[in-house]
Amino acid sequence: MATIQLKAIPYELQLLHPFTIATFTRTTTPIVLIELHYEGTIGYGEASMPPYLGETQQSALQFFSKVDVAQFKFPLDFEAIHNYIDSLEPGNTAAKAALDIALYDLHGKLNKIPCRQIFEANPLLMPATSMTIGIDSIAVIKQKVLEAADFKMLKIKLGHDNDKEIIESIRAITNTPICVDVNQGWKDKNYALDMAYWLADKNVKFIEQPLPKNNLDETAWLSAKSPLPIIADEAVQRFSDINLMKDAYSGINIKLMKCTGLFEAAKMIQEARNKNLKVLIGCMNESSVANMAAAQLAPLADWVDLDGPFMIRNNPFETPVLKNGKIQLTEAPGIGVVKKNTFNSHP
Amino acid sequence: MATIQLKAIPYELQLLHPFTIATFTRTTTPIVLIELHYEGTIGYGEASMPPYLGETQQSALQFFSKVDVAQFKFPLDFEAIHNYIDSLEPGNTAAKAALDIALYDLHGKLNKIPCRQIFEANPLLMPATSMTIGIDSIAVIKQKVLEAADFKMLKIKLGHDNDKEIIESIRAITNTPICVDVNQGWKDKNYALDMAYWLADKNVKFIEQPLPKNNLDETAWLSAKSPLPIIADEAVQRFSDINLMKDAYSGINIKLMKCTGLFEAAKMIQEARNKNLKVLIGCMNESSVANMAAAQLAPLADWVDLDGPFMIRNNPFETPVLKNGKIQLTEAPGIGVVKKNTFNSHP
Repeated sequence: MATIQLKAIPYELQLLHPFTIATFTRTTTPIVLIELHYEGTIGYGEASMPPYLGETQQSALQFFSKVDVAQFKFPLDFEAIHNYIDSLEPGNTAAKAALDIALYDLHGKLNKIPCRQIFEANPLLMPATSMTIGIDSIAVIKQKVLEAADFKMLKIKLGHDNDKEIIESIRAITNTPICVDVNQGWKDKNYALDMAYWLADKNVKFIEQPLPKNNLDETAWLSAKSPLPIIADEAVQRFSDINLMKDAYSGINIKLMKCTGLFEAAKMIQEARNKNLKVLIGCMNESSVANMAAAQLAPLADWVDLDGPFMIRNNPFETPVLKNGKIQLTEAPGIGVVKKNTFNSHP
Repeated sequence: MATIQLKAIPYELQLLHPFTIATFTRTTTPIVLIELHYEGTIGYGEASMPPYLGETQQSALQFFSKVDVAQFKFPLDFEAIHNYIDSLEPGNTAAKAALDIALYDLHGKLNKIPCRQIFEANPLLMPATSMTIGIDSIAVIKQKVLEAADFKMLKIKLGHDNDKEIIESIRAITNTPICVDVNQGWKDKNYALDMAYWLADKNVKFIEQPLPKNNLDETAWLSAKSPLPIIADEAVQRFSDINLMKDAYSGINIKLMKCTGLFEAAKMIQEARNKNLKVLIGCMNESSVANMAAAQLAPLADWVDLDGPFMIRNNPFETPVLKNGKIQLTEAPGIGVVKKNTFNSHP
């Protein structure tokens, strides 16, 4: 009887631009691509592991070696599989996400449906994806903004001492809507509130993680007064974190690599909607695999930040198609990714 | 061989409060309920005919008599049916909508799916429905606002000379978000822009039809400068009107009774999304039938104004269930309406 076989391929994504936030700069991001083979059909998955999150290619490979994929039977029971994978070890959320993504891709391909249908995500509602502009010199930031002309939303990293200068220099060249990501960089709630009013006036749509993630009371104070939604990123990794953050935030950034994949992400969206929280779907530096997986859920979000594949130079898969700044979902089964001919999984 | 049979039932909706806009007041609204019978299954439809729109119970009954429903075969070809019904006579959009709704209800019931699935409308994305507060004395308006405590959005009719007084008296008792419907009542674009800024400051979310529908240039000027979205209602009835209005508005109000029903409404949503227009789903005075039909599409909209059944005292069908101000979509097949035991279709 046929069983699923797992193949894991460590790979290094080369970034188009050095990526700088808060405390470090890097030019590559390690990932592990996986393939689940079943009777000639391949489900693709991806674990992306920016170094600061604690997972490595080695830890992912070790995790995969503990997973008995041969036991999974069709039709796949995603809840049972999720519980099994999650129980094997704590952490390893990116490795878990890789398995989740590959299983959904396989499931979609075997049933000849795009994964978005499983989540009732209508492509008509796809929000424009933002393009992230990292912290850099004003001249380089301006150059990157000009290069991002295809995008209808810019995500600007703030949290240093020239925040206003950055925004003003961008507004000197474009009125494209902006969201800002402070990565916990502001320390004072009054300063944060002043900035929120100042930014609202500059066609900024929301502020991500303005204050340190443990400052729940100050964040709640800020959310209640801010003219802009305050979105949790570092403060929310998984489903259970939504209740822990109480009413401190007005929305959450859901990333597959933080929350173990599509199964839990879909539950988080449901929980967020029930609590009237805004939903942002975000990403890491990723190839098209993790990105197009997240895109299957993206029509259920208010905002989308799925720029990963647009920031790398050696994507093993075809880059997602942008139209009006929105990632296009097609009728292709599964997550809809196409491997490039030039990519050899055994280099 | 079984064929579909049509039964039409004229009915008069009694309004809870006399309804006043611009130039008239009324206490009832004539409708025609229809039933399509097929092998023991009934599809329900409704034509609502506020007098100022030009259709009457008589014109609807006359229209139904021309429709050969016995020719419709399963699986229903909605596009062909739409073209056939639409070609019978110009106008009669409410009568056409009644047929469209009843056919979708029948189709959903025979296939055991809620109609929302046909449109890939995910209930998680259902916006809160607004409750309309008609033009009245300040005291009565305040009373109605208090009665509307279950609603998370208020739709306020403006366009008389005490617009600011109305909004201020509502803001004295609640900060519930408001949308305003001017019904073409403002004549000057500069006044409209001043009002838009003033209203934006009062937690107002959008302005419906501020200027006369033929003033496209002034409306385009206003939309370009307004801090609030400017939504077309009287200016857009059907699909083809979307292109005629060019870029004058930032969104459209889609009502089943204006656009011949769900088939064309779904196409209009698609067109609006492709043009980056906002979408409001609105209604007339209606029973639960037309309302729950529109609710099947409502998760695809930005805003929802489906308060019809909450404004009448003799709904022949169970009133939709509100939760957090949102109309609840269930797993019930078709449009999911339940006729009250006390309602006799042959009174």
